[in-house]
Amino acid sequence: MGAPLKIAIAGLGTVGGGVVKVLAAQGAELRARAGRDLIVVGVSARDAKKARGFQVENFVTDPLALANSDADVVVELIGGDEGVARKLVETALANGKHVVTANKALLAKHGKQLAALAEQKNLQLKFEAAVAGGIPIVKTLRESLIAYEVQAVKGILNGTCNYILTEMEASGASFAEVLKEAQALGYAEADPTLDVGGGDTAHKLALLSSLAFGVAPDLSAMTVEGIQHITPADIHFASEFGFRIKLLGVARRTPSGIDQKVHPAMVRARSPLANVDGAANGVLVDAGRAGPFFFSGRGAGEAPTASAVVADLVEIARGSHTPVFGRPATGLGALKPAPADAALSPWYLRFEVLDLPGVLAEIAGHLSQSGVSIESMIQRGRDLGAPVAIVMITHETQQSAVERALKGIAASDKVRSRPCMIPMEAA
Amino acid sequence: MGAPLKIAIAGLGTVGGGVVKVLAAQGAELRARAGRDLIVVGVSARDAKKARGFQVENFVTDPLALANSDADVVVELIGGDEGVARKLVETALANGKHVVTANKALLAKHGKQLAALAEQKNLQLKFEAAVAGGIPIVKTLRESLIAYEVQAVKGILNGTCNYILTEMEASGASFAEVLKEAQALGYAEADPTLDVGGGDTAHKLALLSSLAFGVAPDLSAMTVEGIQHITPADIHFASEFGFRIKLLGVARRTPSGIDQKVHPAMVRARSPLANVDGAANGVLVDAGRAGPFFFSGRGAGEAPTASAVVADLVEIARGSHTPVFGRPATGLGALKPAPADAALSPWYLRFEVLDLPGVLAEIAGHLSQSGVSIESMIQRGRDLGAPVAIVMITHETQQSAVERALKGIAASDKVRSRPCMIPMEAA
Repeated sequence: MGAPLKIAIAGLGTVGGGVVKVLAAQGAELRARAGRDLIVVGVSARDAKKARGFQVENFVTDPLALANSDADVVVELIGGDEGVARKLVETALANGKHVVTANKALLAKHGKQLAALAEQKNLQLKFEAAVAGGIPIVKTLRESLIAYEVQAVKGILNGTCNYILTEMEASGASFAEVLKEAQALGYAEADPTLDVGGGDTAHKLALLSSLAFGVAPDLSAMTVEGIQHITPADIHFASEFGFRIKLLGVARRTPSGIDQKVHPAMVRARSPLANVDGAANGVLVDAGRAGPFFFSGRGAGEAPTASAVVADLVEIARGSHTPVFGRPATGLGALKPAPADAALSPWYLRFEVLDLPGVLAEIAGHLSQSGVSIESMIQRGRDLGAPVAIVMITHETQQSAVERALKGIAASDKVRSRPCMIPMEAA
Repeated sequence: MGAPLKIAIAGLGTVGGGVVKVLAAQGAELRARAGRDLIVVGVSARDAKKARGFQVENFVTDPLALANSDADVVVELIGGDEGVARKLVETALANGKHVVTANKALLAKHGKQLAALAEQKNLQLKFEAAVAGGIPIVKTLRESLIAYEVQAVKGILNGTCNYILTEMEASGASFAEVLKEAQALGYAEADPTLDVGGGDTAHKLALLSSLAFGVAPDLSAMTVEGIQHITPADIHFASEFGFRIKLLGVARRTPSGIDQKVHPAMVRARSPLANVDGAANGVLVDAGRAGPFFFSGRGAGEAPTASAVVADLVEIARGSHTPVFGRPATGLGALKPAPADAALSPWYLRFEVLDLPGVLAEIAGHLSQSGVSIESMIQRGRDLGAPVAIVMITHETQQSAVERALKGIAASDKVRSRPCMIPMEAA
């Protein structure tokens, strides 16, 4: 039995509290797995006096003090891509301490530099908890699906968005109504922008992309669109065509570079991603010749996220020597983004139009001029002069062609609101 | 960069050939991940002269010679729970060599003893390829879902059975017809007993059970039933009730011990396991407070299985120190089996009866005497004196009560063939 692994935890929210509790409750079990005790030697949080339902010792209010303590590992659960979190991780590594973090924003922005710092000092920097909560997708891409080149990763990575879309489908309520309800239930933040705008998914996708393709995480080479403009009508029409709408992070290898985007997408109702419901997460990995693999489960919350942190701690206790992103950080190349036009897909288009003679001809004319051809169409409502929905599915088309057509259509005085376009995912 | 990892491969079938090819094709990539070269220093196969489409050097026909070579790792791909495979693994470990194996039969029978031997000599014995092909379920249970006690593991672990059931559903053909076709296509062995009889699933389940519950693998404490008696009618009726039939391996913690069984089961049509189609595999892990997690993908074939072997080799190259079953082998307790009666479930029952007055009353009488109550019933066909099917779904009932009732019913001269009973899985 080796010497105990001394752990300092910065941030005692849901996840930090969960880690403290499970280390205490499962001490013997984890000792057997790690070959040594895992002990908490210090914690930090903003409010020292808050009642937490568990004992903590060596409490400090300055997290940076933990980077100067006698801990072997610092667990960073503060969040944010700069400020205290960044300073803490850098100082901990500089002081020879391993780091476990759930901070996707920090790693999406500074991942390569922090990984290089860790590896230079022969330290571990682990982040299973940063992506998809309890699903071990970081470890799987870093250590398991490595023999054949991964071609694509597609994930439902934000539980708040997936909860909102699932509830909109179940209740027929609008985005705004369901968001308000989710906020009341604590499933969405008071400021929901990072979740519903796709930014959180983007952070996570940048990390998966790095692991899958051996490049430095790169947020700049990514188009990001949220779910705020999705209407109950879109969800309803999707279902008529045999699809469901999900906010996906998609990263794929193309001949001209890596295509990374976050957007609402139509996925076939029987596909695995379509059946990820509520606050769950799911990730589909196209592992090249080894085939597609799918992983799903709880992507947030106390126990799933603490489970990921504890797995990383046990691995550090056993003396793991894995490079942070699977390959040495110095060898992580710059991500070469695929041209925005590289990806072809069929598109779902919805127009809210005034039901006047000639409106369909006008829309069809714009589409045809831009080379967009239509596979199927639904028109609902018949009420001369009143607004009705026209919905179309295109054949495979470049995004730019569809955007060009929609620009023309949006300018028509028979079209009531901004046309909606959603790509259909092949799987 | 460390010294090369010297690898000897025993068995050059589909998987062994795949490993040789991918180590050659992905050399630079794997070197970056492993921090050293992975080189093949010896191979063995029965037929030295067979054309294989790749170069091998240091070919021997006696696999045991590999255990006495200068290899650091022996990859055992011979198979079988005794004989050469066992001798090779024991000798390799005794001679200080790490072992990677795809041999579920060997580990299900001798796993604890071999793990103890490996750990005593500070060697790795890795077996990701033994269960579910390319799905990293061994690593996930061994290293990731460890913070909260796993409550249950349920898996579709045999691609041949899943292919046959999927084809029976799609075509309406009988088990015998689809099996013959699968044999012609190379999806089923000439002697299919180990697959269709459930034995292969049992081997894999014993390993998952050991990883999940910290016990020695134990095949003896397992009931095993195959898919030979499933008819197209059963599959059809399942679908009418909103279910699909899958061969599952199920291991769960109960208050009175661990319940392990392999059997065809009804799973809800929308559940993740129900949507594992064709030759794919899928595993659902109930990770206690961390929630349920689901994993699916290709469970056999060259690339998925070679992918698992190569991941194990890279981990050995990096100097991994993980106990074989996640906890030290000396601490793996004996599996305390739950009494066969412990598990309650609803049951699907099918009777082939002569359509004569009183037959339903007779069946209902036997069920009622054994305390089995019926939730719903379908009777198809009306042709006095001819055979018809009666199908029932019971309320939650102990297996023994259903078996008692069916014994009485089978004895009736109005009942034409052995009644069929299939449990309905909750998830």
